[in-house]
Amino acid sequence: MTAGKSLYRALSDYAASDFYPYHMPGHKRNPAGGEMADYHKIDITEIDGFDNLYQADGLLKEAQLRANRLYGADETFFLVNGGSSGALAAIMAATVPMDEILFARNCHKSVYHAAILHGLIVRYYYPRMISEYDIFDGISAEEIGSLLDTYPEVKAVVITSPTYEGVLSDISGIAAVVHERGKILIVDEAHGSHFGLSSHLPKGAIAGGADLVIHSLHKTLPAMTQTALLHVNGDRVDREKLRGYLSMLQSSSPSYVLMASMDACMKFLEEQGQERFAAMRGHYESFCERTAGLEHIRIGKAAKVSQKRHELRGWDPGKMVISVKGTNMTGIELNSILRETYHLEMEMTAETYVLAIMTLMDEAAGWQRLADALCEIDGRIEENADDGSAASKRASHLHKPPKSCMTLARAFHSEWETIPLNKAVGRLAAGFINLYPPGSPIVAPGELFDEAVIKRIEECRRAGLNIQGVSERGEIVVVAL
Amino acid sequence: MTAGKSLYRALSDYAASDFYPYHMPGHKRNPAGGEMADYHKIDITEIDGFDNLYQADGLLKEAQLRANRLYGADETFFLVNGGSSGALAAIMAATVPMDEILFARNCHKSVYHAAILHGLIVRYYYPRMISEYDIFDGISAEEIGSLLDTYPEVKAVVITSPTYEGVLSDISGIAAVVHERGKILIVDEAHGSHFGLSSHLPKGAIAGGADLVIHSLHKTLPAMTQTALLHVNGDRVDREKLRGYLSMLQSSSPSYVLMASMDACMKFLEEQGQERFAAMRGHYESFCERTAGLEHIRIGKAAKVSQKRHELRGWDPGKMVISVKGTNMTGIELNSILRETYHLEMEMTAETYVLAIMTLMDEAAGWQRLADALCEIDGRIEENADDGSAASKRASHLHKPPKSCMTLARAFHSEWETIPLNKAVGRLAAGFINLYPPGSPIVAPGELFDEAVIKRIEECRRAGLNIQGVSERGEIVVVAL
Repeated sequence: MTAGKSLYRALSDYAASDFYPYHMPGHKRNPAGGEMADYHKIDITEIDGFDNLYQADGLLKEAQLRANRLYGADETFFLVNGGSSGALAAIMAATVPMDEILFARNCHKSVYHAAILHGLIVRYYYPRMISEYDIFDGISAEEIGSLLDTYPEVKAVVITSPTYEGVLSDISGIAAVVHERGKILIVDEAHGSHFGLSSHLPKGAIAGGADLVIHSLHKTLPAMTQTALLHVNGDRVDREKLRGYLSMLQSSSPSYVLMASMDACMKFLEEQGQERFAAMRGHYESFCERTAGLEHIRIGKAAKVSQKRHELRGWDPGKMVISVKGTNMTGIELNSILRETYHLEMEMTAETYVLAIMTLMDEAAGWQRLADALCEIDGRIEENADDGSAASKRASHLHKPPKSCMTLARAFHSEWETIPLNKAVGRLAAGFINLYPPGSPIVAPGELFDEAVIKRIEECRRAGLNIQGVSERGEIVVVAL
Repeated sequence: MTAGKSLYRALSDYAASDFYPYHMPGHKRNPAGGEMADYHKIDITEIDGFDNLYQADGLLKEAQLRANRLYGADETFFLVNGGSSGALAAIMAATVPMDEILFARNCHKSVYHAAILHGLIVRYYYPRMISEYDIFDGISAEEIGSLLDTYPEVKAVVITSPTYEGVLSDISGIAAVVHERGKILIVDEAHGSHFGLSSHLPKGAIAGGADLVIHSLHKTLPAMTQTALLHVNGDRVDREKLRGYLSMLQSSSPSYVLMASMDACMKFLEEQGQERFAAMRGHYESFCERTAGLEHIRIGKAAKVSQKRHELRGWDPGKMVISVKGTNMTGIELNSILRETYHLEMEMTAETYVLAIMTLMDEAAGWQRLADALCEIDGRIEENADDGSAASKRASHLHKPPKSCMTLARAFHSEWETIPLNKAVGRLAAGFINLYPPGSPIVAPGELFDEAVIKRIEECRRAGLNIQGVSERGEIVVVAL
């Protein structure tokens, strides 16, 4: 297929033929089909010659092989239900209900969802914070090894690398301690689909030896939202069961538009990836030079941090943590100025920073617009007497973790009751209480509310942080007595 | 929003502004993003002003309300992972693991998947066949009531109406017997998204009083593949849990292109639905007149069948069962002639018929092209000495049902073994063995292989039918001993 037609081209050619569709989809490619009729041209179903995602042996097999060649895993699957469906399928295929599993506490919510849907007993690794930026640090292989010795029944380990903010973990080191103990390593590399595709980028989790790797294509590459890949290495996970879960957790009518988008993205990477990633590296370096003179705003970078903390293994150049910690400006204010004055839309806003995502599709002008704005804004900022330690404390996950008294699934399947947070001492959570960002649960289903955790949630609410799982009236859901 | 902008228009306007995206998706709307860059223009993520599908209170809430107004359920949810995700979420929200549930045996595979993922104990209703066409008949309310009396622990009933071939069940009658007994009725109306939208069409399951109704929008309406709706009536199902499952079973990065497509479809129906459905009725009647003189080919229609069988409640005019049963032509041959000679692509081919789907997007020419082809082909057909009873027997579900010895989930989670089908007597199935069409399992996970079922599968294979779950070498997966 490298030499052959892309899926998009095959679909376009078919649409231009005189074949008449007495089949789904209902739009029948009729150009009178409303304001989005143009999107219907290549939107077909599993007709003759266009293969079947869940039993691929034609066009879709070729397209998945094209992706596989680029990434070099043993096998690669297209996902039309996002990285979320990849995380669910990976975790379900690696375990059976009531198995133990180890999650880094900063995993994406889809990882927690797998524990609910599959009835798993979860042990946690609590990542350290990088206090300079109030973000999660990478994962320590040594600590993972030690936790696996404490919980020898654990079947699989799930970590997120890079973090949302771009901080990498040493996957090969972690894979070694996990595999030595006969366990499975699942890496949610949702934000690292570009890794391993250029010498200018980190090598990534496939090269690091993870058993299952999830790539959310749309996050950092030119592919449509909701497209993703699942990569498999080795035979620690039963491929037949994995295929089974993939077919259960995704639509039985997968979108050919989304599948064509993934294939088009792979074709684009084959043809222009090397050149564009090299250019991206150049833009990144120019950006660093242009912003080197900033007096107050600080940009998170691998080199700067790795001198300070041995844990940290690197930083994705595509993730800009733009920190105003210790100044008289907050992340929320910085975001507001960037948006209102400069029409620059950030990925995320935290108490002391904003996050910008840069990809191979940002041209020089995009990088420059951000650098220029930051240079202008920097002049208006002053240092603050407040050293930011209160903010660090709120964001930190080094608090005493809540005690788990029931599996997530059992708490989710229980009868629920809604009560005020300040009356919750001694009760078990039925839902999640999350702090965004950094975006991991303060409390998960089945965990016990004690005075310390309630106090912490109330402090975060008073500071105006985005706490999910507590209503405006201060109510939460707990397991009914 | 009726008066306001469509989601598509809001996205297009934003794309045309000078806002620069330092956020996902990675394509950055850069027109140099490959052969599908045009598809990236309106493909955004949850930025300010564009709401969040799983906590909708802005544009996406308005869009779902627009859909809700058209269908008249109590609440309507957009689905970006197809009707499959709606079936999973509906069944999971209506039950807890180890609950009993009643499925019509001709339910879609996603319904069976819910039983595996959620660990349910399944009881079955075996629908009768319409022997004239070798397709499933509608569901008998009386028999459902009697089964619920036999299995009083059943929490919910799941049926498919219309069938894939367009045969309707009496939903209000079934809802009455289900609700009298305090159970929940879930109707997979995947093929009936157009029902209830015009006086020319059946009223559908929402009007019939089902608790949960799944619509696969793309099957019969002008919306992109993988789009669907879930409708809720009443309070027999916990909406909070339903929302929880919807957020777990669908991508946490739902596609704005798919969501805009659903909204565009609703707008189209508001503006042109009445006119187009009336025209469709006219095309249908002309088609019936034009094909009334066919001597050998028979078209399945409600009127004709309902005189014969009291069970049948009607037939979707959008589903054409084109039967050659009892003639010297097979469905496979008819499909081949339609495809190769006339470039008419059918929805599905069976041993004695082909299935064509017609929608409000088929103009007169589309109907005519099919009628003309059938009139020409009819002249080449002869009656056959074979009355087709052997074919009916192969397609029939009135065989002795296999005995279930283990839940679907337990069989799925067991160790598996691959063995030849002819050595399987006394073993429990680990996977499904399906006959396509009609497309429901001959054997489901946990069911016992006996001599009768093995003989039936072997007969179907010898007749060249599409049996899934048996390898080319005649092997199957069973639960390991």
